[in-house]
Amino acid sequence: MNDQCLFCGIVAGEVPHTKVSEDDTMYAFMDINPASDGHLLVIPKRHSVDLLDISSDDLTAVTLAAQRIARTVVEELGADGVNLLNCCGADAWQTVFHFHLHVVPRYVDKTKDRLVLPWQPGVPGRAGTIAGLGGRLLAALD
Amino acid sequence: MNDQCLFCGIVAGEVPHTKVSEDDTMYAFMDINPASDGHLLVIPKRHSVDLLDISSDDLTAVTLAAQRIARTVVEELGADGVNLLNCCGADAWQTVFHFHLHVVPRYVDKTKDRLVLPWQPGVPGRAGTIAGLGGRLLAALD
Repeated sequence: MNDQCLFCGIVAGEVPHTKVSEDDTMYAFMDINPASDGHLLVIPKRHSVDLLDISSDDLTAVTLAAQRIARTVVEELGADGVNLLNCCGADAWQTVFHFHLHVVPRYVDKTKDRLVLPWQPGVPGRAGTIAGLGGRLLAALD
Repeated sequence: MNDQCLFCGIVAGEVPHTKVSEDDTMYAFMDINPASDGHLLVIPKRHSVDLLDISSDDLTAVTLAAQRIARTVVEELGADGVNLLNCCGADAWQTVFHFHLHVVPRYVDKTKDRLVLPWQPGVPGRAGTIAGLGGRLLAALD
């Protein structure tokens, strides 16, 4: 636990929140600034800063919990779809530096759903850039 | 393999693409409509439709591969952050119905990065709705 961390405070029960699910490894609670009705966060109980920092075990536990919760969101809340989103780093919109996976239920009914597509579909990729960047990653990952 | 599936065709080598990484279970390749420089997709080799359909083993393998690739994106491409995004269902922007996890490198330099925040931060949640929906999920997940 990190004494300065808001989400560690939630896991410890020191910060008011609406809990959704919990096991030995992970904790899930409602987002207080929801992008849609039922928007929630799944986190590891053990403090880790972000996607680069989290252990494989904790990342696996959080992801499998998010899948289980996504199924429940569809069954229980009648969502028409679900987005999972992780923001890693301030420049990727991370604002609380304890790893968290957003589970965002989606609805045809836009009174329940305020999410907008985050990029412009149909903007053609620069083929040279795509192939060049892909080649660099392939070599680095080999 | 699903004969009608574009991503199964990529795994089979029948559809041109820029490969980034591969093991027995997962396959990663560049997105041809990138939201940022280096935007790529990680998929299971075995066909599954979406987050509700994919097996735990395949979901774990894809997620851990995405973490490894995210680290490489930061180290090799100099990204300032990374987003992971999964779209589950047409109403959540899924367009190819073979599970895929977007790995989107993020940059302070906006010539490399066309992603915009998909929801309005600061829109207050309806407290009653948050607590009510959270309570329903908690009971359903218990």
